[in-house]
Amino acid sequence: MPLYLDIHTKAEGITQEALEEAHKKDLEVQVKYNVRYLKYWYDIATERVFCLIEAPNKEAAEAVHREAHGMVADEIIEVTEGR
Amino acid sequence: MPLYLDIHTKAEGITQEALEEAHKKDLEVQVKYNVRYLKYWYDIATERVFCLIEAPNKEAAEAVHREAHGMVADEIIEVTEGR
Repeated sequence: MPLYLDIHTKAEGITQEALEEAHKKDLEVQVKYNVRYLKYWYDIATERVFCLIEAPNKEAAEAVHREAHGMVADEIIEVTEGR
Repeated sequence: MPLYLDIHTKAEGITQEALEEAHKKDLEVQVKYNVRYLKYWYDIATERVFCLIEAPNKEAAEAVHREAHGMVADEIIEVTEGR
């Protein structure tokens, strides 16, 4: 399954609690799209969030965020994990 | 120990082999700086590389790349891993 890293470049007003809540919703919704939100990292100061996702395609990854909480990423990049 | 995600936005001409070689050098050098390069992901098409790093500070993370192969990141962001 392809691997993606998404980037939210201006997640305005994010807090740790809001992100945890949003991520929980991703986990609830993702099954429907055959997607797995694996991990995420964030920087409150610069309002950025990075999600690592296994998904059949970009559209499926985006659909999960859209349905779960509406905060879609600014970019979704197909990546390979290095060895 | 702080966690960082670095972004190489234009890793020109990268190949999987070159990245594996560079990463191996990071692993050799990092001990000296008390740094751990944990994982990395890349996209050959857009010449981007993302490294996840545990380091005492940004400067130490950068010093490892500089000494190991000279390909320093364009940006190093302190991040928190989400739950």
